[in-house]
Amino acid sequence: MQSIEKRFTATNGFQFYKYNMERSTIMNEVVEKAEKARDISFDLAGMSTEKKNVALQEIADRIWEKRHHILQKNSEDVANAKKSGQPSAIIDRLALTEERLAGMIDAIRLLIKLEDPVGNVLSETTRPNGLQIKKIAVPLGVIAMIYEARPNVTIDAAALSIKTGNAILLRGSTSTIHSNKAIVLVIQEALVEAGLPEKTVQLIENPDRAVLSSLYTMKHLIDVIIPRGGKKLIETVVENARIPVLETGAGNCHVYIDESADRTMAVSIVVNAKTQRPSVCNACETVLIHENWAKRHLPALVKELKMNDVTLRGDHVAQQLSPEIGQATEQDWADEFLDLTLAVKIVPNIHEALDHIEIYGTKHSEAIISETKENVALFFNKIDASTVYHNASTRFTDGFEFGFGAEIGISTQKLHVRGPMGLEALTTTKYHVYGEGQTK
Amino acid sequence: MQSIEKRFTATNGFQFYKYNMERSTIMNEVVEKAEKARDISFDLAGMSTEKKNVALQEIADRIWEKRHHILQKNSEDVANAKKSGQPSAIIDRLALTEERLAGMIDAIRLLIKLEDPVGNVLSETTRPNGLQIKKIAVPLGVIAMIYEARPNVTIDAAALSIKTGNAILLRGSTSTIHSNKAIVLVIQEALVEAGLPEKTVQLIENPDRAVLSSLYTMKHLIDVIIPRGGKKLIETVVENARIPVLETGAGNCHVYIDESADRTMAVSIVVNAKTQRPSVCNACETVLIHENWAKRHLPALVKELKMNDVTLRGDHVAQQLSPEIGQATEQDWADEFLDLTLAVKIVPNIHEALDHIEIYGTKHSEAIISETKENVALFFNKIDASTVYHNASTRFTDGFEFGFGAEIGISTQKLHVRGPMGLEALTTTKYHVYGEGQTK
Repeated sequence: MQSIEKRFTATNGFQFYKYNMERSTIMNEVVEKAEKARDISFDLAGMSTEKKNVALQEIADRIWEKRHHILQKNSEDVANAKKSGQPSAIIDRLALTEERLAGMIDAIRLLIKLEDPVGNVLSETTRPNGLQIKKIAVPLGVIAMIYEARPNVTIDAAALSIKTGNAILLRGSTSTIHSNKAIVLVIQEALVEAGLPEKTVQLIENPDRAVLSSLYTMKHLIDVIIPRGGKKLIETVVENARIPVLETGAGNCHVYIDESADRTMAVSIVVNAKTQRPSVCNACETVLIHENWAKRHLPALVKELKMNDVTLRGDHVAQQLSPEIGQATEQDWADEFLDLTLAVKIVPNIHEALDHIEIYGTKHSEAIISETKENVALFFNKIDASTVYHNASTRFTDGFEFGFGAEIGISTQKLHVRGPMGLEALTTTKYHVYGEGQTK
Repeated sequence: MQSIEKRFTATNGFQFYKYNMERSTIMNEVVEKAEKARDISFDLAGMSTEKKNVALQEIADRIWEKRHHILQKNSEDVANAKKSGQPSAIIDRLALTEERLAGMIDAIRLLIKLEDPVGNVLSETTRPNGLQIKKIAVPLGVIAMIYEARPNVTIDAAALSIKTGNAILLRGSTSTIHSNKAIVLVIQEALVEAGLPEKTVQLIENPDRAVLSSLYTMKHLIDVIIPRGGKKLIETVVENARIPVLETGAGNCHVYIDESADRTMAVSIVVNAKTQRPSVCNACETVLIHENWAKRHLPALVKELKMNDVTLRGDHVAQQLSPEIGQATEQDWADEFLDLTLAVKIVPNIHEALDHIEIYGTKHSEAIISETKENVALFFNKIDASTVYHNASTRFTDGFEFGFGAEIGISTQKLHVRGPMGLEALTTTKYHVYGEGQTK
């Protein structure tokens, strides 16, 4: 079939196909692996849940068996990162330990227990002409994952795509190459042992950045690109990819404390939303406070936040009400701090809070603390975000907290899936139509 | 708010926002209309179904009232097109008649009767910590429709987006500008009469092609771009847009006649799939025939197709079996003829049919005519397409035939919606989470 494909691509009319083939002399590895993944995807689509689960079990077992080898390869990456002067945060993300591996293996075991979405009949109808139409969940096909120096993503992404019957191409950062090669080798051995195609999971090893431009255009071979990592990585992929992207975006999340908000509840929610894990996208970055609530309770809120080492930057009114609040610049309203910094803005009414969120929000998660029904309804109706909360922390926007049992990421896009993405996000649908010769 | 936005965009960190604002001096019309649409979208999201239906009714009534004016403006476009030597097919698509307007009005009246997807609770769950999570269907927000010389799309797109609570920016081709201006004016008058914002539907009038590059990048103002028209238009939009695209693609659809296929049924399905409306994406372009079926029945099939004026191009085996079949080039397997031409290929078994479809298919609609259960199952499992058919014509891939009551187009993409798109395709979701102070 290889030869038919090549003959065909030389003469066919589809621009993008031809275009990629012209690149194949430079990008041999990518094209070959992507073609392999595409071929395999047709077999994976019909793979039984049982067989996929056996493969996941085998992967979990083998990663543990081979943990010393994996850790040794990982230590080479860590040593290189230290030598090249990488910051400690990067090195921390890169470094594996036995404990971390055990955590990843636990996640695979949980994944085995989850329902397989593939094959689910999502709707079923018989038309007046007798045609029977079933809408079935099927794998996306071939996924390309582009990510940074986190070897845990290698295991996580491979496991999620196996569970959903997809073939996956992994492109981690060059600084993780030894760890990733060791992990993918173990995964491929496990796949073979379980009777799944070895190349269900493949690592793109070529360090050349041109690999990415090649991946971005392979629409005929890759169904979706998932970038996982910092804002810059995601923006670059979204900007350049010609293939649909599952975008997990930044979260500039707000908590609005309405005039009628319960003081204890508001303080506890803001402290949680800001401090529980400041580095994540569902953490709170700005608190908007109704002026009448602020006049009575702002000092109590500030005290509690200060006890939790939070740095506060506010507008003039906030600064007048509390001397512990520094001066906020306009940039502060737009920034995702991702640390223990919180912006504070006092608003005369809920409408100004809504306007502020409309301008600076990233459509991720927004909360209102209020005892006034109409204001909650207004907030829920007007805020354009994946998730709106009444009297709860923004931190709950998460696949596990929502009961999905797994999480691909949190989508801030509006198409396909919005909000926390469970296994269904890695599936599409196919209509099965059964007739008896119908033409009308 | 305008001034706040401008001040903010001058200092904020979001690249795409700043980028667009730099263009606003050139692209004033687009930016202003898109900002207006974005503003309005927040009001439209909460608009009642009743009010939206009143607006649709008003539009239907007023288009009929003002039909003479619309037809007169349309005749200016037609005269210009003739003067510039446009082919008659284009002029036919461009020309409105009273009868055609009546048809469009009927479609609006049908749309009024359809269920409004906005506000539907798609799932509802209470978590162990007491959080109540509801997944609600909401409008996408702002839609940009880019299309060619079909004034019917103006009415159709406006009506669909009003029904689903979206604001819409329309960018038709310059050759339709007089018709589109007249139609949009009538729609806006009707919107005001019905109490909806006048600018719910806006036409981009600037003929400069740079308008498109501007639309492509306005991610902060536009949620989705829908290209409607020929393959080139769609490819250009997909290639250039930095905003999610609802892609309605080409259909190179196949009918595979298996060895066991019933002769009468196979002939009737192929004739229907090819000839009923050859210009559409769900028409059949290549018939793949098992050699044993072909040996017995090909002449009967060819005879029936010839009686329907179909030109046949086939491979060597097909030509040997029937002298009425011309020589197919490899290009013919890849082309969407969109006319009364059909490619014919004889295959030794179902696997070669599957391979052929994998290479040349466009993942739209594929049919198998067979009385062999295992082959049907194999076909349904292996074919990667929006819709697979057993013993029925590919022509059924259509929103109305599927019982959706409306159709935005037929999606050949895998994300968001695949296959015929009903009103739900113009919605996204929002999670409403109700708590009582939960932080864990």
